[in-house]
Amino acid sequence: AVRLRVREALGAREPADAVRVQGWVRSVRSQKEVLFLHINDGSSLESLQVVADPSLEKDLTFGSAVEVQGKLVKSPHRMQNMELQAETIRVVGPCDIWSFPLKMKERHSLEYVRQFPHLRCRSNTLGALLRIRSEATAGIHSFFQDNGYVHIHTPIITSNDCEGAGELFQIETSSEEKESAEKTHFFNVPAFLTVSGQLHLEVMAGAFTHVFTFGPTFRAENSQSRRHLAEFYMVEAELSFTESLQDIMQVMEDLFKTVTSTVLSRCPHDVELFHKYIAPAQKVMRVTGKNCSPVVLFSSSCRISYSEAVEILKQAPQTFTFKPEWGCDLQTEHEKYLVKHCGEVPVFVVNYPYDLKPFYMRDNEDAPQHTVAAVDLLVPGVGELCGGSLREERLPFLKSRLQRLGLTDAYQWYLDLRKFGSVPHGGFGMGFERYLQYILGVDNIKDVIPFPRFSHSCLL
Amino acid sequence: AVRLRVREALGAREPADAVRVQGWVRSVRSQKEVLFLHINDGSSLESLQVVADPSLEKDLTFGSAVEVQGKLVKSPHRMQNMELQAETIRVVGPCDIWSFPLKMKERHSLEYVRQFPHLRCRSNTLGALLRIRSEATAGIHSFFQDNGYVHIHTPIITSNDCEGAGELFQIETSSEEKESAEKTHFFNVPAFLTVSGQLHLEVMAGAFTHVFTFGPTFRAENSQSRRHLAEFYMVEAELSFTESLQDIMQVMEDLFKTVTSTVLSRCPHDVELFHKYIAPAQKVMRVTGKNCSPVVLFSSSCRISYSEAVEILKQAPQTFTFKPEWGCDLQTEHEKYLVKHCGEVPVFVVNYPYDLKPFYMRDNEDAPQHTVAAVDLLVPGVGELCGGSLREERLPFLKSRLQRLGLTDAYQWYLDLRKFGSVPHGGFGMGFERYLQYILGVDNIKDVIPFPRFSHSCLL
Repeated sequence: AVRLRVREALGAREPADAVRVQGWVRSVRSQKEVLFLHINDGSSLESLQVVADPSLEKDLTFGSAVEVQGKLVKSPHRMQNMELQAETIRVVGPCDIWSFPLKMKERHSLEYVRQFPHLRCRSNTLGALLRIRSEATAGIHSFFQDNGYVHIHTPIITSNDCEGAGELFQIETSSEEKESAEKTHFFNVPAFLTVSGQLHLEVMAGAFTHVFTFGPTFRAENSQSRRHLAEFYMVEAELSFTESLQDIMQVMEDLFKTVTSTVLSRCPHDVELFHKYIAPAQKVMRVTGKNCSPVVLFSSSCRISYSEAVEILKQAPQTFTFKPEWGCDLQTEHEKYLVKHCGEVPVFVVNYPYDLKPFYMRDNEDAPQHTVAAVDLLVPGVGELCGGSLREERLPFLKSRLQRLGLTDAYQWYLDLRKFGSVPHGGFGMGFERYLQYILGVDNIKDVIPFPRFSHSCLL
Repeated sequence: AVRLRVREALGAREPADAVRVQGWVRSVRSQKEVLFLHINDGSSLESLQVVADPSLEKDLTFGSAVEVQGKLVKSPHRMQNMELQAETIRVVGPCDIWSFPLKMKERHSLEYVRQFPHLRCRSNTLGALLRIRSEATAGIHSFFQDNGYVHIHTPIITSNDCEGAGELFQIETSSEEKESAEKTHFFNVPAFLTVSGQLHLEVMAGAFTHVFTFGPTFRAENSQSRRHLAEFYMVEAELSFTESLQDIMQVMEDLFKTVTSTVLSRCPHDVELFHKYIAPAQKVMRVTGKNCSPVVLFSSSCRISYSEAVEILKQAPQTFTFKPEWGCDLQTEHEKYLVKHCGEVPVFVVNYPYDLKPFYMRDNEDAPQHTVAAVDLLVPGVGELCGGSLREERLPFLKSRLQRLGLTDAYQWYLDLRKFGSVPHGGFGMGFERYLQYILGVDNIKDVIPFPRFSHSCLL
């Protein structure tokens, strides 16, 4: 018998005689004359209907693993193309439905299944999420490859600790821990988990005009928020020979549109599940149905400067917890207001105060040390989706800034990059989980990553 | 003027009038009447020849970044298709050749450039390596996607610490370090860097029949060997409804052949560079030239059992540092001998002693607790390239093994996977750096990863 995946069986053009399908039981319905099963193997959201003689029902429970042999025939039902007429059903692995936390035909909430990190992938919603995540991952690699970018595995462990991007995780070996007195480090120097691959991508941007990385990054923030994880994924790109911040913004937008379009075309049903049952009502209208196009999520966007943003906030008819003030960071409440103000579309905010941003951002020279060429992309519901900047490629500017910060020694290698064929360059990072939250309308970031890690929680 | 990458300019079919090319100077040769430049932008190994009037030579040094505008014309030289007749040359970023550690027209050794982790990507060899690594990465994603695998981001930080796969890195926050007395962990429990995504993939193999991951893994081994890194990349796959170890071995072989074939067809010149100048002589003959096919590296393979391997070693005419003995691990010297014995082809060694392998491997039941269904793939020059096994899917077997090891509590979740629709399954991991070492003939693993991390070294 030919082994078929559920997706293949469902999509078959012709009936077939000797077919074998394996998977997990998603429903059992026994009638007097006939037994209906639905089996799913993760290859699609839809399960395959199996029609069998009731005598074959032995030990068939929800969640059990089965192998069915029989005939693939046209289904009489309009909703399904093919169904399987079983000749034999073998239970490969039974399932104790009394202790199994998932129940047949129940739509478990995301909060409920989050309690079972080792089993939640068997629910419809997480199954769909993981297929979407997989397609988005492939889509990101394709986008960059098709556009001539070289993929770089930037390091996870790094000795750079002065970037100031929030609290860091430090690495020790188990043996180091024990000798508490005078420590020698495994790497000779203190080592940390990366917060960004940017500086390492900049190394590569001196040899390749287009590079990208897509990997895990880490923040030891003590936050339980729906928008933060201790371990999350970032897509980062760096471009050489840039002419303006617009070059960077264009890639952000192209990446977003291309990947979203790939996801929508490769797993429309999975995406529909989220828009129907998970996302807030207004999103459903915007994204599904005949307008099911990535353009809808990015049909128009807005571009304002940081200074304009502060003015908009100051004139807002509402009061904020944090008073808007030129020179201060935009808070979540501010970002939300700006997005609303612009009509619930993606908003690029450009040209941030010099003192607010890290040393590597390019001085705009609009006034002495006034603003730098930085850009954040804010999106409805999620807030900051991307952050990027032009980098300071001019040796004297970078040198004096590092000197003032007392970082000259630590960043000698970074200064070197400006001594040997330096070019105007820039790049950005996009939070992959926030991207998924945005396109699917998922409220909590813990529900868009297979194994969420956050303060007080590291299950499995 | 139309902006072209070097690769595009070199591959152009037709001459073009107003063209703009940006990159870094790889050579300058000034003659009385004419100035020759080669510029490279990382898009290909080959540089573009620029022909210019000697008056344009100002500040053009090796390593400097330039923008050239002019006419793209057919090259009179046989070796090159197109060349650029410069009208203007602008130095974007000069290069101080006296302090720049790379020198024009010198073939620097891999050892030499390893000293400059921030600059070595500008050498021909590392440039080629990074393009190959990027294509191999894309090829791995494509192979699995084309075969219906779901990509899973298995976690980097994990609370599993009992797998026994060598020394672990532990994670602390900077603040934890300070309070030395009664420690509270960021995650409430001790947390480690992953040594393998296997157990997490097994979770997913209960919902999807085909899953894979491709990410960083970590070992705190105090080794400076040419085969070990503290941070390295692994491709791991897990398959459900397997029938025998052969299923796993087939995927290993298919993956190897497909990815190698992709790499060879997408960057033949880069691969040739390694086979010509880096790899040992015998490899050159085997792989390049008209026989430039992945099949050569895997044209035949050999399959022996662990027990047969031990017999072969016992009968070897040479003495080993570690005496071969049934029940002991195969050492590097043993692996080397086995590969030689089989004719310098890839060797699958199957069915290892029960007590030698981790708890999750499937008991072959050939005698009480005698061997498990494990497989290692050994390849010439590199040793172990892949390791895999069938997993123990039978609840009673797994339960009693965990009990004997005192791990029942820690692995309750793993036992759960066998209670709810358990299926025969198995998988493997392939070391990505070792794969690159093998196909390119690179002796030292530090030369096939962008930023090597190993004991006493974590540069940048």
